[in-house]
Amino acid sequence: MQATAPKGLVTAEHLEFFKATIGEQYVLVDQESLTDYGHDETERLQYYPEVVLKPRTAEEIAAIMKCCNQFHIPVTPRGAGTGLSGGALPHLGGVLISSERMNSILSIDERNLQVITEPGVITEVLQNAVKEKGLFYPPDPSSRGSCFIGGNIAENSGGPKAVKYGVVKDYVLNLEVVLPTGEIIWTGANVLKNSTGYNLTQLLVGSEGTLGIVTKIVLKLIPHPQYDLLMLVPFASLEKASEAVSAIFRAGFVPSALELVEIDALKIVSTFVDSTAVPVNDDIAAHLIIEVDGNNMDVLMGEMEAISELLTQFDAGEIFFADDAQQKAELWKLRRRVAEAVKTTGYTIEEDTVVPRAELPALIRGVKELGRQHGFHAVCYGHAGDGNLHIRINHPTIKNSHGNAEMTAALTELFHLVKKLGGTISGEHGVGLIQKPYLDTVFQAANLRLMREIKKAFDPNNILNAGKIFDLQ
Amino acid sequence: MQATAPKGLVTAEHLEFFKATIGEQYVLVDQESLTDYGHDETERLQYYPEVVLKPRTAEEIAAIMKCCNQFHIPVTPRGAGTGLSGGALPHLGGVLISSERMNSILSIDERNLQVITEPGVITEVLQNAVKEKGLFYPPDPSSRGSCFIGGNIAENSGGPKAVKYGVVKDYVLNLEVVLPTGEIIWTGANVLKNSTGYNLTQLLVGSEGTLGIVTKIVLKLIPHPQYDLLMLVPFASLEKASEAVSAIFRAGFVPSALELVEIDALKIVSTFVDSTAVPVNDDIAAHLIIEVDGNNMDVLMGEMEAISELLTQFDAGEIFFADDAQQKAELWKLRRRVAEAVKTTGYTIEEDTVVPRAELPALIRGVKELGRQHGFHAVCYGHAGDGNLHIRINHPTIKNSHGNAEMTAALTELFHLVKKLGGTISGEHGVGLIQKPYLDTVFQAANLRLMREIKKAFDPNNILNAGKIFDLQ
Repeated sequence: MQATAPKGLVTAEHLEFFKATIGEQYVLVDQESLTDYGHDETERLQYYPEVVLKPRTAEEIAAIMKCCNQFHIPVTPRGAGTGLSGGALPHLGGVLISSERMNSILSIDERNLQVITEPGVITEVLQNAVKEKGLFYPPDPSSRGSCFIGGNIAENSGGPKAVKYGVVKDYVLNLEVVLPTGEIIWTGANVLKNSTGYNLTQLLVGSEGTLGIVTKIVLKLIPHPQYDLLMLVPFASLEKASEAVSAIFRAGFVPSALELVEIDALKIVSTFVDSTAVPVNDDIAAHLIIEVDGNNMDVLMGEMEAISELLTQFDAGEIFFADDAQQKAELWKLRRRVAEAVKTTGYTIEEDTVVPRAELPALIRGVKELGRQHGFHAVCYGHAGDGNLHIRINHPTIKNSHGNAEMTAALTELFHLVKKLGGTISGEHGVGLIQKPYLDTVFQAANLRLMREIKKAFDPNNILNAGKIFDLQ
Repeated sequence: MQATAPKGLVTAEHLEFFKATIGEQYVLVDQESLTDYGHDETERLQYYPEVVLKPRTAEEIAAIMKCCNQFHIPVTPRGAGTGLSGGALPHLGGVLISSERMNSILSIDERNLQVITEPGVITEVLQNAVKEKGLFYPPDPSSRGSCFIGGNIAENSGGPKAVKYGVVKDYVLNLEVVLPTGEIIWTGANVLKNSTGYNLTQLLVGSEGTLGIVTKIVLKLIPHPQYDLLMLVPFASLEKASEAVSAIFRAGFVPSALELVEIDALKIVSTFVDSTAVPVNDDIAAHLIIEVDGNNMDVLMGEMEAISELLTQFDAGEIFFADDAQQKAELWKLRRRVAEAVKTTGYTIEEDTVVPRAELPALIRGVKELGRQHGFHAVCYGHAGDGNLHIRINHPTIKNSHGNAEMTAALTELFHLVKKLGGTISGEHGVGLIQKPYLDTVFQAANLRLMREIKKAFDPNNILNAGKIFDLQ
C-alpha cells in the first residue's frame, strides 16, 4: 500500500530549523530512510514521512513540537518499529520522530527499587541491567530483544509474565512527557501509591503516542525471583488445552507464564528457527508452555507436580520438563518467534483479542468457524493465562486487513464475538491504525466522545499521531 | 465550620421529580439527615446538602443527573462517609447522592476470578464473600469494616496489603459509570489486559467522584494465600525503624504488610481500645508491624526469621510474634483504629504524604521539625512499606487545616519537602476539599490545565462534585 498523505507540509525553512535544533546529521530526508522509517511490523503496510528526526533530549523534542504545532505539521513518534497495530506508521506524512538516540538508562535506584530510563532503551537491555542488581522488570513482549521500552509504554505491552506480574501499566510510576504544545511535564511522582489528582500517568500509558511523547520513564522494580521451572504440555485438542488454562487458576496456582501455541504455528516456527525441540506429531493439536517461579525450589517442584496432575484431567499428553537453561531458552525462543515465523509463510494479519480466560475455548471455536466462512486459515497462540489470544490469519489473496472491505467484515464479526464474551479488541498491541474501524464494536458513543475530548485537551491542533486509535470528527 | 453554600437551587418541582424517580421515602430533607450526610471523617468539617437522595439503580442516578445537569444543581456523591480529604462533603449544597442502597454483590465469577459488585458494599463484606470461595481482594483501608467499595474506587485506596498486592487501581477491570450528562457507560472490558483506547477505567479510579458516579464495579481477584505470620518489632528510634523499612525490601523480601506506628499513637490507641497487647515502655519510639503471607508455612517461617535477623542491624528490640488468630486480630485492631483514636484526643488534622520508601527518615525528621516551628504535635504512622506516611496533627487551637492560613502555611512547607523527596501529597486519601490549596506544590500549570480540561470533557456544566481536587477557573 502506498502513502496517500498530503505532501509539502514540511518546508525548507522547517528543515533548517530542525537541523539547527538537533544537528544536521539527525535530520534525514533520503529515500532509503523515509522507506525504512515508513513501516513497522504491521501487516504489509508502508507509508512515507517527509523527514525523519532523531533528537537526543526532551528539550529538542519540545522545540520540534512547538514548530510543528505552530504550522500544523503531523508528527509520528516511533520507537523500534516493532509494533503490530500500525501505531508508528507515518500515514499522514509530515515529521517522524525516532527515539533511538534517547537510549540511556539514567539511574537504577536500589534503595527504592526503581529505575529511571529514557524511552529508546531496548526492553531486554533494561531487564538485564536491573537483573544485575537482583531486580526484576517483568513485562517483556516477544520482541523484547529489539523493541524499545518507550514503545512498550505507548502500547501498554504485556508479554508472557503478565499473567503473574501484570503489564506495563502496573510498573510505570511517573513519566516525563513532551506535550503536543511543546510543554514538558512530569505526570506524577516516584511513589508506589498516588491519589493526587487525575492519573495522567495511567492515561498516557497505552495512549499510543497520541497524547504526548514520553522522554523519561520511572519504573517500579521488584526483587528477581531466584528460580523458575518450565514445562511443555501437549494436548490432543485445542479446546482441552484452553479449558485447562482456567482450571489451573481455579485450583489456586498462579504460574509466571501460561502460553498456548497451536500446533500449526509451532510447526512453522520450528522449521523457521530449525529446531526439533518440540514434538509436532499428528496426535497433538496444541501445547501449553507453563512456567512457575519463586525463591524456593521445593515449593516450585511441588507446584509443577500438582499442575501436571491436574492436567491429566484434560487429556494432556506426555509432559516435557525443560531441564536446564539451554532447554528453557530453546522453548522460549520458539514461542517468541512465532509471530515472525508465521508472517513469513503468509500469515500477515494479526489480531490481539482478549477475553476472560475461561472464555478462551468459545473464542477459539469462533475463530475457526470464521475462517471457514471467510476462506482464511488462522493459527492461534498467545498469553492464554491472561485470556489474550493472538490470531494470525493467512488469506490466499488478502494480505492487509487495513483498507480491505472483505477482511474488515470478517474481523467485525470476530470483535462482536469478543465483545459478547466480555472481552475487547486488543490486549497488548494497541488500536493504532488498523483496529480503528472496529472501536464502535466495543465502545459506546459516549466513550469515544470522551476519548476525543481528552485528545483535544492534550493536542488542540491534532498534530501528534493524528488518526491513530480514532479520527477526530 | 458552617455551610456558606448558595441555597435554593433545589426547588419543590425538583423534589417532586426526585420522589417520582426513586420513591418518596428515599428523598430526605429533614435537618437530621442533612446534618448526618453533611460531614465525613475529615477534620471537623460540616456542610449541608439541600436534599439527600438514596437511589437504587444506575438508571435512577442517570435520571437525577440529567435533571441536575439541566438546572446546574451541584451533586455530591457519597459512599459510607469515611473519607479523610472531604471528598464527600456537600460544600456547595445542592443534591447529595448516597450509594448505600446499591449494596449487592452481583456475581462472583470463580471461573475467571472476578467479582461484579455495586458500589455500596462494605469493603470487608466483599472481602469475606470472596474469601468463602478461596479468593482474595487485597486492598482494604483501615476503615474496611464500614467504608464502601465505591468510595475506595473514588480515592484509589490502599491499605496495609498494598505493599505486596497493590492498590485499588490494580484490581479494577471495568466500571459502569453514570456520567454527569446522565449517560451510562462501561469504561472498559472484563479482561486482565487491555490496550484498546484511552484507559478511562484508570482515569475514573481515584478521580474522587468528579468525573462520574460508579454504579457497577468489576474487580480482579486472586487465590487467597493460605497462611500469614505477623510480628511486632519495637525500635528505640523512629529513624532506625524507618531505615529498617527499605532495608527489608533491598534484602529481597516482600512482606504482605509493613506498617509503622509511632509510640505516641500506639499509647493513645491502646488506651482507646483498652488493650495491653503492645508494650509501650519508655525505651520504645516506634513499632513496625510486619506480615508475610503465602502457601507454604516453612517458607514463611524462614522469611520471618531472616527478616528478624536483618532487623538486629537496626537496633530492633525484643520481637513479639503473634501466635494465633486472636493475637493477630488484636494487633490489627490497634493498627486500624489509630486514626479514630488519635482524633478523639485532639489530633484532628491528618495528612497522607507519600515518598519513595527510602526517604521516610528524611520525611519524618522534617515533620517533627515543622511541628516545633509551627507549635503543633504530630504523630506518624502508616504504610511504611509503600512510603505512605500518615501524619496526625494536634494543634492547641487550630483544629481544621481547611480555611486556616497558619496551618496552610505549615502544610505548604510540608508538601514542598515531600515534593523534594520525590513524593506527593496523597497516597490513598485523595485531594478532595482540604488538599486543594496545595496542588501547585506538586504539579506544573500544564498538569492542572489538562486535568481541568478532562473535567470539562466529562462534566461540561461542572455539577458533579465541583470544587473537589481543583476549582475550574
